[in-house]
Amino acid sequence: MLAYGDRRTSSYDDLLETLTSHIKREPEALSVKTLNQNVVEAEYAVRGAIAIKSAAYQQQLKEGKGDDLPFDKVYQCNIGNPQILGQKPITFFRQVLSLCEYRELLDNELAAQIYPPDAIERARQYLDGIPGGVGAYSESKGAVVLRKQVAQGIEARDGHPCDIDNLWLTDGASPAVHYCMKSLLRNEHDCILCPIPQYPLYSATIKLYGGTLLPYYLEESEGWQTTLDNLRVQVGTARRQGKQVRAMVVINPGNPTGQVLDRDNQELLVRFCKEEGLVLMADEVYQTNIYAEGKSFLSFKKVLMEMGDDCTTSVPLVSMNSISKGFFGECGRRGGYFECVNFPKEVKDQLYKLSSISLCPNLSGQICMALTMNPPKPGEPSYELFAKERNDILSSLKRRAVLVKETFDSLEGVSCTTVEGSMYAFPRLTIPPAAVKAAADQDKQPDFVYCMELLDKTGIVTVPGSGFGQEKGTFHVRTTILPPESDMQAVSDKFAEFHKGFMAKYKNQNGSK
Amino acid sequence: MLAYGDRRTSSYDDLLETLTSHIKREPEALSVKTLNQNVVEAEYAVRGAIAIKSAAYQQQLKEGKGDDLPFDKVYQCNIGNPQILGQKPITFFRQVLSLCEYRELLDNELAAQIYPPDAIERARQYLDGIPGGVGAYSESKGAVVLRKQVAQGIEARDGHPCDIDNLWLTDGASPAVHYCMKSLLRNEHDCILCPIPQYPLYSATIKLYGGTLLPYYLEESEGWQTTLDNLRVQVGTARRQGKQVRAMVVINPGNPTGQVLDRDNQELLVRFCKEEGLVLMADEVYQTNIYAEGKSFLSFKKVLMEMGDDCTTSVPLVSMNSISKGFFGECGRRGGYFECVNFPKEVKDQLYKLSSISLCPNLSGQICMALTMNPPKPGEPSYELFAKERNDILSSLKRRAVLVKETFDSLEGVSCTTVEGSMYAFPRLTIPPAAVKAAADQDKQPDFVYCMELLDKTGIVTVPGSGFGQEKGTFHVRTTILPPESDMQAVSDKFAEFHKGFMAKYKNQNGSK
Repeated sequence: MLAYGDRRTSSYDDLLETLTSHIKREPEALSVKTLNQNVVEAEYAVRGAIAIKSAAYQQQLKEGKGDDLPFDKVYQCNIGNPQILGQKPITFFRQVLSLCEYRELLDNELAAQIYPPDAIERARQYLDGIPGGVGAYSESKGAVVLRKQVAQGIEARDGHPCDIDNLWLTDGASPAVHYCMKSLLRNEHDCILCPIPQYPLYSATIKLYGGTLLPYYLEESEGWQTTLDNLRVQVGTARRQGKQVRAMVVINPGNPTGQVLDRDNQELLVRFCKEEGLVLMADEVYQTNIYAEGKSFLSFKKVLMEMGDDCTTSVPLVSMNSISKGFFGECGRRGGYFECVNFPKEVKDQLYKLSSISLCPNLSGQICMALTMNPPKPGEPSYELFAKERNDILSSLKRRAVLVKETFDSLEGVSCTTVEGSMYAFPRLTIPPAAVKAAADQDKQPDFVYCMELLDKTGIVTVPGSGFGQEKGTFHVRTTILPPESDMQAVSDKFAEFHKGFMAKYKNQNGSK
Repeated sequence: MLAYGDRRTSSYDDLLETLTSHIKREPEALSVKTLNQNVVEAEYAVRGAIAIKSAAYQQQLKEGKGDDLPFDKVYQCNIGNPQILGQKPITFFRQVLSLCEYRELLDNELAAQIYPPDAIERARQYLDGIPGGVGAYSESKGAVVLRKQVAQGIEARDGHPCDIDNLWLTDGASPAVHYCMKSLLRNEHDCILCPIPQYPLYSATIKLYGGTLLPYYLEESEGWQTTLDNLRVQVGTARRQGKQVRAMVVINPGNPTGQVLDRDNQELLVRFCKEEGLVLMADEVYQTNIYAEGKSFLSFKKVLMEMGDDCTTSVPLVSMNSISKGFFGECGRRGGYFECVNFPKEVKDQLYKLSSISLCPNLSGQICMALTMNPPKPGEPSYELFAKERNDILSSLKRRAVLVKETFDSLEGVSCTTVEGSMYAFPRLTIPPAAVKAAADQDKQPDFVYCMELLDKTGIVTVPGSGFGQEKGTFHVRTTILPPESDMQAVSDKFAEFHKGFMAKYKNQNGSK
């Protein structure tokens, strides 16, 4: 080792001072004031102050110190995280994943008595096809054998070919959003059209990467549909301000709003992107979560392919999916994919480079993505159990979607659109003026105060509508429909009781002033 | 559904033209010219053109179309990806992971005959402690039960306490680098001190987030150690140019350079960060990969804690680790952690927010990180097998480290420093002037041409030194020491034969001109 100390002379400080005396240095090595302010200003309400406080309550209850709390359980209705609320995983998926982790099981006679033969066969197929198995980096876009399975699933869903060259497997759907925002946004003059209300991943990443969110308002009175008039006005206004509009985000089925788009509406949005020269970012992670009669999921890829005009061959589309949602809800393993349509090769090369900088998505997530897009088929040993598990979950979610809407509609000053799909209800609250004033006095949003009081009094964790964006003067709350049916009535009753108390408290305050 | 089409009148185009006629729009919705140029300019050589070509060769061989190729196997020496080259995973780790995937196994009598009791017990401990199991989002910083195990491992390693509040579990080590660069870099005037040669994750992320890489040169003639003189000159020059230096990256053990730092040297670097007001980013992912006699790994946390002066309580340190490296090499599941020391609470809040925007790291990676930091202990049923597997891998890597250095040193015009640690050798090549000219004629770096010819002739995949940065006029190649010992002699022989041919070819060209 070199004794660098030897080289250090007493003149070092003098030398350094000479060199640097005219340069202003930050007074502290590290402080929030000197961080990139886009980071500081980014907001992510789903895991904000209310979520953090709920975790503290949970810890308190776990440690047996919750005697003073007015509840004995925390109900996490803030995040689409089904398994934390007791939803069981799909058995076949877990069997294959378990086998892939421990290859020795494939030829173990005892294991053959535990696992069904199609699970063993599937695991063998994957492990034979993935160079180095689940412990090796795969191709940055995902292992070919798994991308092929996902492509087959997309083809079966849409009836149109899917080239694995256009397909990236990812750690959940978030990386697709990060890659797109990072690539499309050059400075604050670049805008992304986002629905309002929106899932705050979009507002957060647009802020992080230094761009501007250009809102388009979903029409609550029309079941959260999109009107072209509003889109046109927003884009026109932005352009007059010298902004470049780069892309349009569509979340279908909607988060937090739960609506499901019809083909006509989707075609209008595609044409709008064509006319305005926008990339269409289709967040389709709730594609198997459809509950309303007469509604079905159509991918934007399918709609685009079947338009048969200029749009089919020219509108750049990125379609995102995830294993975190659907009836499987495998949030914890972080799996997803995105498919690019009508992307120039040079742009795909850049996306490839971005994915390669993170080396590869995790293999368990990749495998699970392939499984959800290629589940057991009729006649295979695991099909019957798989179909039962899937149907039980989806029909229960459907019942819960109805119950949640009914509960909210029954409350004074609350209205809720039909939960056609996804995992959320987004009821509108009429908050008494006294409560609005009380919130303003605390420099808080009224629905934030409502949700925080709801947590403090009932243990129910929700997200205020202000975290998603909402029209000025309206207030909402986002709640999942995920508590198990055995808890649902209790959650519903507690919510109703809290709401009545909240309304009474602030009405009285109003009256007494 | 609303019939938006009804609202569309023939005046739409007129209206839009009026609104937007004075605004310049991008002529194409999506082209590489209109992307964020930081993305376009970022480079990541580890998965660059040579890696892409090698994948094509592999596919060709797999399809039985490789008769025209001068090799029948591709040797991936470009990436630290041990399991793709046949390294077996640690059995205990995979057993626990397999059990965690399929909870039913915990109480299955047949499974009790397959899995050792401590693996079952460990899986039960994890699943009992992780709310919702491996299929649920965990806390964004990682599940508490797993962070506690990682903290215990850090405490056992260093002999100093580790607060889980300072600890983030991550998908590999990369997210820590992304979070730091994103947070610290405000614009191109903000610099990060990086060793040259460096792992290109650093140059790529600094470019992506719009900052400037400030190089400090490792001294090859002194075994790739760092000299303070060079650091001082670089910082002074940057300051005179109006730059802010925000942080210093240190990779220990070195990648691509394989050196291991001693405590004295580490203390000097810490003091330098103190004096200059820098965050110390310690990439310590090779901490269990130490081969040279008399060398051992000391974490910067331990060094910092034991300095006992101002530095101990004031130098901000982020220490990064990964499950992808070490003797386990679990690259494919993407697990890692970072620990912050001397970070203000407000800055940690920002890092928490960044991690929450990606929801959580994958649970398999989190579990594997906890396992590597808390492997079986003497006396436990799995200890003996674990210790044998670990020792076999590490002693084999040690033999390969020696063999690789000896091979390079035996070649004309090649010299190689001792591979003290990590997984790489970074030999220096004397490239004949004719080859340098030939490369310049192709607008390529000479070592890129060398590595591409090496691939084309032998199937050996390496990364040119230019991908990591190197002093002007010097040329290197980075190769892993990871091919299995059964292949190592063949790789060594093929490399030597290629090198002789390369040297002869260009010497002759020189002579004939």
